[in-house]
Amino acid sequence: MWQLFTFPLCPFSRKLRLLMGEKNIAYEVVREYPWEGRDGFWQMNPAGRTPVLFDPARRHALCDSRAICEFLEETVERNPMTGGTAPQRAEIRRLVALFDENFYNDVTAPLLHERMKKRLVLRQPPDSKALREAMKMAHGHLDYIDWLVDTRQWVGGSTLSLADLACAAQVSVADYLGGIDWKGHDQARGWYAVMKSRPSFRPLLAEKMEGLPPPPHYALVDA
Amino acid sequence: MWQLFTFPLCPFSRKLRLLMGEKNIAYEVVREYPWEGRDGFWQMNPAGRTPVLFDPARRHALCDSRAICEFLEETVERNPMTGGTAPQRAEIRRLVALFDENFYNDVTAPLLHERMKKRLVLRQPPDSKALREAMKMAHGHLDYIDWLVDTRQWVGGSTLSLADLACAAQVSVADYLGGIDWKGHDQARGWYAVMKSRPSFRPLLAEKMEGLPPPPHYALVDA
Repeated sequence: MWQLFTFPLCPFSRKLRLLMGEKNIAYEVVREYPWEGRDGFWQMNPAGRTPVLFDPARRHALCDSRAICEFLEETVERNPMTGGTAPQRAEIRRLVALFDENFYNDVTAPLLHERMKKRLVLRQPPDSKALREAMKMAHGHLDYIDWLVDTRQWVGGSTLSLADLACAAQVSVADYLGGIDWKGHDQARGWYAVMKSRPSFRPLLAEKMEGLPPPPHYALVDA
Repeated sequence: MWQLFTFPLCPFSRKLRLLMGEKNIAYEVVREYPWEGRDGFWQMNPAGRTPVLFDPARRHALCDSRAICEFLEETVERNPMTGGTAPQRAEIRRLVALFDENFYNDVTAPLLHERMKKRLVLRQPPDSKALREAMKMAHGHLDYIDWLVDTRQWVGGSTLSLADLACAAQVSVADYLGGIDWKGHDQARGWYAVMKSRPSFRPLLAEKMEGLPPPPHYALVDA
Protein backbone atom coordinates (compact mmCIF):
# COMPACT_ATOMS: atom_id res chain seq x y z
CA MET A 1 0.00 0.00 0.00
CA TRP A 2 1.15 3.58 -0.71
CA GLN A 3 2.69 5.43 2.21
CA LEU A 4 1.95 9.16 2.28
CA PHE A 5 4.51 11.22 4.20
CA THR A 6 2.75 14.31 5.49
CA PHE A 7 1.46 16.34 8.44
CA PRO A 8 -2.23 17.23 9.01
CA LEU A 9 -2.05 20.86 7.85
CA CYS A 10 -0.02 20.43 4.63
CA PRO A 11 -2.34 21.90 1.97
CA PHE A 12 -0.56 20.16 -0.93
CA SER A 13 -0.95 16.79 0.79
CA ARG A 14 -4.62 17.60 1.33
CA LYS A 15 -5.08 18.15 -2.41
CA LEU A 16 -3.42 14.80 -3.05
CA ARG A 17 -5.48 13.06 -0.34
CA LEU A 18 -8.68 14.45 -1.85
CA LEU A 19 -7.60 13.10 -5.24
CA MET A 20 -6.77 9.69 -3.76
CA GLY A 21 -10.12 9.70 -1.96
CA GLU A 22 -12.03 10.56 -5.16
CA LYS A 23 -10.15 7.82 -7.04
CA ASN A 24 -10.48 5.27 -4.20
CA ILE A 25 -6.73 4.77 -3.90
CA ALA A 26 -5.72 3.24 -0.55
CA TYR A 27 -2.79 4.69 1.41
CA GLU A 28 -1.50 4.93 4.93
CA VAL A 29 -0.34 8.19 6.46
CA VAL A 30 3.21 8.42 7.82
CA ARG A 31 3.64 11.51 9.97
CA GLU A 32 6.43 13.80 8.72
CA TYR A 33 7.22 17.33 9.89
CA PRO A 34 9.41 18.73 7.10
CA TRP A 35 10.71 21.57 9.30
CA GLU A 36 12.50 18.98 11.45
CA GLY A 37 14.81 18.31 8.48
CA ARG A 38 15.03 14.53 9.00
CA ASP A 39 17.86 13.09 6.85
CA GLY A 40 15.82 10.14 5.57
CA PHE A 41 13.12 12.53 4.39
CA TRP A 42 15.55 14.79 2.51
CA GLN A 43 17.02 11.71 0.88
CA MET A 44 13.57 10.78 -0.42
CA ASN A 45 12.82 14.35 -1.50
CA PRO A 46 15.69 16.84 -2.08
CA ALA A 47 13.04 19.59 -2.16
CA GLY A 48 12.38 18.86 1.53
CA ARG A 49 8.63 19.23 1.14
CA THR A 50 5.53 17.18 1.82
CA PRO A 51 3.81 15.26 0.30
CA VAL A 52 5.99 12.31 -0.62
CA LEU A 53 4.17 9.21 -1.85
CA PHE A 54 6.26 6.12 -1.24
CA ASP A 55 5.78 2.66 -2.72
CA PRO A 56 7.35 0.25 -0.18
CA ALA A 57 7.24 -2.73 -2.59
CA ARG A 58 9.33 -0.95 -5.27
CA ARG A 59 11.21 1.30 -2.82
CA HIS A 60 10.19 4.21 -5.05
CA ALA A 61 9.32 7.73 -3.87
CA LEU A 62 7.15 10.15 -5.82
CA CYS A 63 7.64 13.84 -4.94
CA ASP A 64 5.90 17.14 -5.64
CA SER A 65 2.14 17.24 -5.27
CA ARG A 66 1.41 18.25 -8.86
CA ALA A 67 3.76 15.61 -10.28
CA ILE A 68 2.11 12.97 -8.06
CA CYS A 69 -1.40 14.06 -9.08
CA GLU A 70 -0.44 13.84 -12.77
CA PHE A 71 1.05 10.37 -12.11
CA LEU A 72 -2.17 9.16 -10.47
CA GLU A 73 -4.26 10.67 -13.25
CA GLU A 74 -2.15 8.80 -15.79
CA THR A 75 -2.08 5.45 -13.98
CA VAL A 76 -5.54 5.25 -12.32
CA GLU A 77 -8.21 5.89 -14.92
CA ARG A 78 -11.32 5.98 -12.73
CA ASN A 79 -12.80 9.35 -11.83
CA PRO A 80 -10.48 11.54 -13.88
CA MET A 81 -9.92 14.96 -12.30
CA THR A 82 -7.99 16.57 -15.17
CA GLY A 83 -10.39 15.64 -17.96
CA GLY A 84 -11.78 17.29 -21.07
CA THR A 85 -10.17 18.96 -24.07
CA ALA A 86 -6.64 20.34 -24.00
CA PRO A 87 -7.87 23.92 -23.31
CA GLN A 88 -10.12 22.63 -20.51
CA ARG A 89 -7.21 20.72 -19.01
CA ALA A 90 -5.05 23.86 -19.29
CA GLU A 91 -7.73 25.81 -17.41
CA ILE A 92 -7.81 23.20 -14.61
CA ARG A 93 -4.01 23.26 -14.36
CA ARG A 94 -3.94 27.09 -14.39
CA LEU A 95 -6.27 27.15 -11.40
CA VAL A 96 -4.38 24.41 -9.55
CA ALA A 97 -1.26 26.60 -9.90
CA LEU A 98 -3.21 29.69 -8.78
CA PHE A 99 -4.30 27.97 -5.56
CA ASP A 100 -1.01 26.11 -4.99
CA GLU A 101 1.07 29.24 -5.50
CA ASN A 102 -0.90 32.49 -5.16
CA PHE A 103 -3.48 31.44 -2.54
CA TYR A 104 -0.78 29.53 -0.67
CA ASN A 105 1.76 32.37 -0.68
CA ASP A 106 -0.81 35.08 0.09
CA VAL A 107 -2.93 33.27 2.69
CA THR A 108 -2.06 29.71 3.74
CA ALA A 109 1.71 30.13 4.16
CA PRO A 110 1.52 33.22 6.41
CA LEU A 111 -1.27 31.60 8.46
CA LEU A 112 0.80 28.41 8.85
CA HIS A 113 3.80 30.47 9.86
CA GLU A 114 2.01 32.74 12.34
CA ARG A 115 -0.47 30.30 13.87
CA MET A 116 1.18 26.88 13.55
CA LYS A 117 4.95 27.21 13.29
CA LYS A 118 5.27 30.06 15.80
CA ARG A 119 3.08 28.20 18.30
CA LEU A 120 4.44 24.67 17.92
CA VAL A 121 8.04 25.19 16.80
CA LEU A 122 9.30 28.71 17.42
CA ARG A 123 7.28 29.34 20.62
CA GLN A 124 6.61 32.94 19.62
CA PRO A 125 3.38 34.95 19.57
CA PRO A 126 1.84 35.52 16.13
CA ASP A 127 2.34 38.85 14.36
CA SER A 128 -1.13 40.41 14.23
CA LYS A 129 -0.21 42.63 11.26
CA ALA A 130 0.82 39.58 9.18
CA LEU A 131 -2.43 37.82 10.17
CA ARG A 132 -4.54 40.82 9.17
CA GLU A 133 -2.75 41.03 5.83
CA ALA A 134 -3.31 37.29 5.17
CA MET A 135 -7.02 37.59 5.96
CA LYS A 136 -7.28 40.63 3.70
CA MET A 137 -5.65 38.65 0.90
CA ALA A 138 -8.05 35.77 1.63
CA HIS A 139 -10.98 38.08 0.85
CA GLY A 140 -9.51 38.84 -2.56
CA HIS A 141 -9.14 35.15 -3.32
CA LEU A 142 -12.65 34.37 -2.03
CA ASP A 143 -13.97 37.09 -4.36
CA TYR A 144 -12.38 35.25 -7.27
CA ILE A 145 -13.78 31.88 -6.07
CA ASP A 146 -17.21 33.54 -5.81
CA TRP A 147 -16.86 34.63 -9.42
CA LEU A 148 -15.67 31.21 -10.60
CA VAL A 149 -18.53 29.23 -9.04
CA ASP A 150 -20.99 31.91 -10.13
CA THR A 151 -20.03 31.56 -13.80
CA ARG A 152 -19.44 27.79 -14.04
CA GLN A 153 -20.69 24.67 -12.28
CA TRP A 154 -17.44 23.87 -10.53
CA VAL A 155 -14.24 25.85 -9.92
CA GLY A 156 -12.44 24.50 -12.98
CA GLY A 157 -15.35 24.05 -15.41
CA SER A 158 -18.49 21.94 -15.85
CA THR A 159 -17.29 18.99 -13.79
CA LEU A 160 -15.55 18.41 -10.47
CA SER A 161 -11.80 18.62 -11.11
CA LEU A 162 -8.42 18.95 -9.50
CA ALA A 163 -9.06 22.72 -9.44
CA ASP A 164 -11.82 22.14 -6.84
CA LEU A 165 -9.57 19.82 -4.84
CA ALA A 166 -6.61 22.26 -4.89
CA CYS A 167 -8.89 25.15 -3.89
CA ALA A 168 -10.65 23.21 -1.12
CA ALA A 169 -7.29 22.00 0.21
CA GLN A 170 -5.97 25.56 0.67
CA VAL A 171 -9.29 26.89 2.00
CA SER A 172 -9.54 24.05 4.53
CA VAL A 173 -6.11 24.72 6.02
CA ALA A 174 -6.82 28.46 6.14
CA ASP A 175 -10.19 27.72 7.78
CA TYR A 176 -8.56 25.40 10.34
CA LEU A 177 -6.26 28.28 11.25
CA GLY A 178 -9.15 30.75 11.64
CA GLY A 179 -8.23 32.70 8.51
CA ILE A 180 -11.48 32.46 6.56
CA ASP A 181 -14.32 34.93 7.04
CA TRP A 182 -17.20 33.89 4.78
CA LYS A 183 -19.11 37.17 5.16
CA GLY A 184 -19.99 38.43 1.70
CA HIS A 185 -18.86 35.20 0.04
CA ASP A 186 -22.06 33.17 -0.21
CA GLN A 187 -21.15 31.51 -3.51
CA ALA A 188 -17.74 30.35 -2.29
CA ARG A 189 -19.26 29.27 1.03
CA GLY A 190 -21.95 27.21 -0.74
CA TRP A 191 -19.36 25.53 -2.95
CA TYR A 192 -17.14 24.77 0.07
CA ALA A 193 -20.10 23.23 1.97
CA VAL A 194 -20.63 20.89 -1.00
CA MET A 195 -16.92 19.99 -1.01
CA LYS A 196 -16.93 19.33 2.76
CA SER A 197 -19.85 16.92 2.39
CA ARG A 198 -17.96 14.67 -0.04
CA PRO A 199 -16.73 11.34 1.38
CA SER A 200 -13.19 12.17 0.20
CA PHE A 201 -13.17 15.16 2.57
CA ARG A 202 -14.20 13.33 5.77
CA PRO A 203 -10.78 11.96 6.78
CA LEU A 204 -9.28 15.46 6.55
CA LEU A 205 -11.97 17.08 8.69
CA ALA A 206 -11.51 14.44 11.40
CA GLU A 207 -7.75 14.88 11.62
CA LYS A 208 -6.17 17.32 14.06
CA MET A 209 -2.77 18.91 14.36
CA GLU A 210 -1.34 18.08 17.78
CA GLY A 211 -1.41 21.04 20.16
CA LEU A 212 -3.43 23.14 17.74
CA PRO A 213 -7.19 22.44 17.87
CA PRO A 214 -9.36 23.79 15.03
CA PRO A 215 -12.20 26.28 15.66
CA PRO A 216 -15.58 24.64 16.48
CA HIS A 217 -17.13 25.32 13.05
CA TYR A 218 -14.24 23.75 11.13
CA ALA A 219 -15.51 20.18 10.83
CA LEU A 220 -19.23 21.05 10.53
CA VAL A 221 -20.46 20.39 7.02
CA ASP A 222 -23.12 23.12 7.13
CA ALA A 223 -20.98 25.83 8.77
CA MET B 1 0.57 33.30 -34.35
CA TRP B 2 0.88 32.88 -30.58
CA GLN B 3 1.71 36.01 -28.62
CA LEU B 4 3.94 35.46 -25.61
CA PHE B 5 3.61 38.12 -22.90
CA THR B 6 6.90 38.26 -21.02
CA PHE B 7 10.05 40.18 -20.11
CA PRO B 8 13.60 39.03 -20.95
CA LEU B 9 14.54 37.77 -17.47
CA CYS B 10 11.38 35.81 -16.61
CA PRO B 11 12.74 32.28 -15.96
CA PHE B 12 9.35 30.61 -16.39
CA SER B 13 8.92 32.24 -19.79
CA ARG B 14 12.44 31.08 -20.70
CA LYS B 15 11.45 27.48 -19.93
CA LEU B 16 8.40 27.88 -22.16
CA ARG B 17 10.43 29.57 -24.92
CA LEU B 18 12.95 26.71 -24.86
CA LEU B 19 10.06 24.24 -25.19
CA MET B 20 8.54 26.21 -28.08
CA GLY B 21 11.98 26.37 -29.70
CA GLU B 22 12.52 22.60 -29.36
CA LYS B 23 9.03 21.96 -30.78
CA ASN B 24 9.39 24.58 -33.55
CA ILE B 25 6.32 26.50 -32.47
CA ALA B 26 6.27 30.06 -33.81
CA TYR B 27 5.41 32.97 -31.52
CA GLU B 28 5.98 36.68 -31.19
CA VAL B 29 7.10 38.30 -27.96
CA VAL B 30 4.97 41.03 -26.41
CA ARG B 31 6.88 42.89 -23.72
CA GLU B 32 5.10 42.81 -20.34
CA TYR B 33 6.52 43.91 -16.98
CA PRO B 34 4.20 42.24 -14.45
CA TRP B 35 5.30 44.54 -11.63
CA GLU B 36 3.67 47.47 -13.47
CA GLY B 37 0.28 45.84 -12.73
CA ARG B 38 -1.31 46.72 -16.09
CA ASP B 39 -5.08 46.16 -15.92
CA GLY B 40 -5.26 44.35 -19.24
CA PHE B 41 -2.60 41.92 -18.11
CA TRP B 42 -4.34 41.09 -14.81
CA GLN B 43 -7.55 40.53 -16.77
CA MET B 44 -5.74 37.94 -18.89
CA ASN B 45 -4.06 36.35 -15.87
CA PRO B 46 -5.50 36.88 -12.37
CA ALA B 47 -2.25 35.43 -11.00
CA GLY B 48 -0.49 38.53 -12.40
CA ARG B 49 2.50 36.52 -13.61
CA THR B 50 4.35 35.96 -16.84
CA PRO B 51 4.27 34.00 -19.09
CA VAL B 52 0.87 34.35 -20.71
CA LEU B 53 0.45 32.71 -24.11
CA PHE B 54 -2.30 34.41 -26.08
CA ASP B 55 -4.05 33.15 -29.19
CA PRO B 56 -5.26 36.32 -31.01
CA ALA B 57 -7.49 34.35 -33.42
CA ARG B 58 -9.50 32.71 -30.63
CA ARG B 59 -8.99 35.54 -28.09
CA HIS B 60 -7.88 32.86 -25.66
CA ALA B 61 -5.15 33.24 -23.01
CA LEU B 62 -3.20 30.36 -21.52
CA CYS B 63 -1.61 31.05 -18.11
CA ASP B 64 0.91 29.40 -15.78
CA SER B 65 4.10 28.10 -17.35
CA ARG B 66 3.59 24.48 -16.31
CA ALA B 67 -0.03 24.43 -17.49
CA ILE B 68 1.09 25.94 -20.83
CA CYS B 69 3.91 23.41 -21.22
CA GLU B 70 1.50 20.53 -20.56
CA PHE B 71 -0.90 22.05 -23.12
CA LEU B 72 1.82 22.24 -25.77
CA GLU B 73 2.97 18.70 -24.96
CA GLU B 74 -0.61 17.47 -25.45
CA THR B 75 -1.33 19.41 -28.62
CA VAL B 76 2.02 19.43 -30.47
CA GLU B 77 3.33 15.88 -30.72
CA ARG B 78 6.77 16.50 -32.22
CA ASN B 79 9.80 16.38 -29.93
CA PRO B 80 8.02 15.37 -26.72
CA MET B 81 9.74 16.76 -23.63
CA THR B 82 7.68 14.89 -21.00
CA GLY B 83 8.00 11.43 -22.51
CA GLY B 84 8.52 7.89 -21.23
CA THR B 85 6.67 5.77 -18.69
CA ALA B 86 4.49 7.24 -15.95
CA PRO B 87 7.32 7.04 -13.35
CA GLN B 88 9.74 8.67 -15.82
CA ARG B 89 7.21 11.43 -16.47
CA ALA B 90 6.76 11.86 -12.70
CA GLU B 91 10.52 12.24 -12.33
CA ILE B 92 10.64 14.92 -15.05
CA ARG B 93 7.75 16.79 -13.42
CA ARG B 94 9.35 16.48 -9.94
CA LEU B 95 12.48 18.16 -11.26
CA VAL B 96 10.58 20.87 -13.12
CA ALA B 97 8.90 21.71 -9.80
CA LEU B 98 12.26 21.62 -8.01
CA PHE B 99 13.74 24.18 -10.40
CA ASP B 100 10.56 26.27 -10.75
CA GLU B 101 10.05 26.47 -7.00
CA ASN B 102 13.16 25.65 -4.95
CA PHE B 103 15.87 26.98 -7.30
CA TYR B 104 13.69 29.97 -8.11
CA ASN B 105 12.89 30.84 -4.48
CA ASP B 106 16.44 30.22 -3.24
CA VAL B 107 18.44 31.76 -6.08
CA THR B 108 16.64 33.36 -9.03
CA ALA B 109 14.00 35.34 -7.12
CA PRO B 110 16.46 37.04 -4.69
CA LEU B 111 18.84 37.80 -7.59
CA LEU B 112 15.98 39.31 -9.62
CA HIS B 113 14.91 41.37 -6.62
CA GLU B 114 18.37 42.62 -5.65
CA ARG B 115 19.93 43.10 -9.08
CA MET B 116 17.00 43.81 -11.42
CA LYS B 117 14.03 45.18 -9.49
CA LYS B 118 16.08 47.36 -7.11
CA ARG B 119 18.06 48.79 -10.02
CA LEU B 120 15.30 49.32 -12.56
CA VAL B 121 12.18 49.84 -10.44
CA LEU B 122 12.96 50.66 -6.81
CA ARG B 123 16.19 52.61 -7.49
CA GLN B 124 17.87 51.13 -4.44
CA PRO B 125 21.30 49.54 -3.98
CA PRO B 126 21.33 45.73 -3.70
CA ASP B 127 21.62 44.08 -0.28
CA SER B 128 24.99 42.32 -0.34
CA LYS B 129 23.97 39.88 2.42
CA ALA B 130 20.97 38.71 0.38
CA LEU B 131 23.19 38.34 -2.70
CA ARG B 132 25.76 36.27 -0.78
CA GLU B 133 23.00 34.03 0.58
CA ALA B 134 21.54 33.50 -2.94
CA MET B 135 24.95 32.59 -4.34
CA LYS B 136 25.53 30.19 -1.44
CA MET B 137 22.18 28.54 -2.17
CA ALA B 138 23.15 28.39 -5.86
CA HIS B 139 26.17 26.24 -4.93
CA GLY B 140 23.89 23.74 -3.21
CA HIS B 141 21.66 23.53 -6.28
CA LEU B 142 24.67 23.22 -8.61
CA ASP B 143 25.91 20.32 -6.44
CA TYR B 144 22.61 18.57 -7.07
CA ILE B 145 22.77 19.30 -10.82
CA ASP B 146 26.34 17.91 -10.82
CA TRP B 147 24.99 14.73 -9.24
CA LEU B 148 22.07 14.48 -11.66
CA VAL B 149 24.14 14.79 -14.84
CA ASP B 150 26.79 12.52 -13.34
CA THR B 151 24.31 9.68 -12.79
CA ARG B 152 22.13 10.03 -15.91
CA GLN B 153 22.54 11.33 -19.46
CA TRP B 154 20.32 14.37 -19.02
CA VAL B 155 18.90 16.14 -15.97
CA GLY B 156 15.58 14.28 -16.04
CA GLY B 157 16.68 10.89 -17.38
CA SER B 158 18.09 9.29 -20.53
CA THR B 159 16.71 11.91 -22.94
CA LEU B 160 16.48 15.68 -23.13
CA SER B 161 13.32 16.72 -21.29
CA LEU B 162 11.44 19.60 -19.75
CA ALA B 163 13.62 19.07 -16.65
CA ASP B 164 16.66 20.26 -18.65
CA LEU B 165 14.70 23.21 -20.02
CA ALA B 166 13.40 24.25 -16.58
CA CYS B 167 16.88 23.93 -15.08
CA ALA B 168 18.60 25.81 -17.90
CA ALA B 169 15.98 28.56 -17.73
CA GLN B 170 16.66 29.25 -14.04
CA VAL B 171 20.45 28.91 -14.41
CA SER B 172 20.49 31.28 -17.39
CA VAL B 173 18.68 34.05 -15.51
CA ALA B 174 20.92 33.57 -12.45
CA ASP B 175 23.96 33.64 -14.77
CA TYR B 176 22.74 36.83 -16.49
CA LEU B 177 22.56 38.41 -13.02
CA GLY B 178 26.07 37.30 -12.08
CA GLY B 179 24.87 34.74 -9.53
CA ILE B 180 26.54 31.59 -10.90
CA ASP B 181 30.09 30.61 -9.94
CA TRP B 182 30.96 27.40 -11.82
CA LYS B 183 34.07 26.68 -9.73
CA GLY B 184 33.84 23.07 -8.52
CA HIS B 185 30.84 22.33 -10.74
CA ASP B 186 32.41 20.88 -13.89
CA GLN B 187 29.56 18.44 -14.59
CA ALA B 188 26.87 21.10 -14.34
CA ARG B 189 29.02 23.50 -16.37
CA GLY B 190 29.50 20.91 -19.13
CA TRP B 191 25.79 20.20 -19.27
CA TYR B 192 24.98 23.94 -19.40
CA ALA B 193 27.47 24.48 -22.26
CA VAL B 194 25.61 21.78 -24.22
CA MET B 195 22.27 23.45 -23.47
CA LYS B 196 23.58 26.88 -24.52
CA SER B 197 24.69 25.48 -27.88
CA ARG B 198 21.18 24.29 -28.80
CA PRO B 199 19.37 26.37 -31.44
CA SER B 200 16.41 26.78 -29.05
CA PHE B 201 18.69 28.68 -26.65
CA ARG B 202 20.07 31.24 -29.11
CA PRO B 203 17.17 33.74 -29.03
CA LEU B 204 17.41 33.91 -25.23
CA LEU B 205 21.16 34.54 -25.19
CA ALA B 206 20.79 37.39 -27.68
CA GLU B 207 18.08 39.18 -25.71
CA LYS B 208 18.91 41.86 -23.19
CA MET B 209 17.02 43.48 -20.35
CA GLU B 210 16.95 47.24 -20.91
CA GLY B 211 19.32 49.10 -18.58
CA LEU B 212 20.81 45.88 -17.25
CA PRO B 213 23.55 44.44 -19.47
CA PRO B 214 24.68 40.83 -18.85
CA PRO B 215 28.27 39.96 -17.88
CA PRO B 216 30.60 39.38 -20.88
CA HIS B 217 30.70 35.56 -20.51
CA TYR B 218 26.90 35.23 -20.45
CA ALA B 219 26.24 34.70 -24.17
CA LEU B 220 29.44 32.75 -24.93
CA VAL B 221 28.64 29.12 -25.60
CA ASP B 222 31.98 27.85 -24.26
CA ALA B 223 32.13 30.01 -21.13
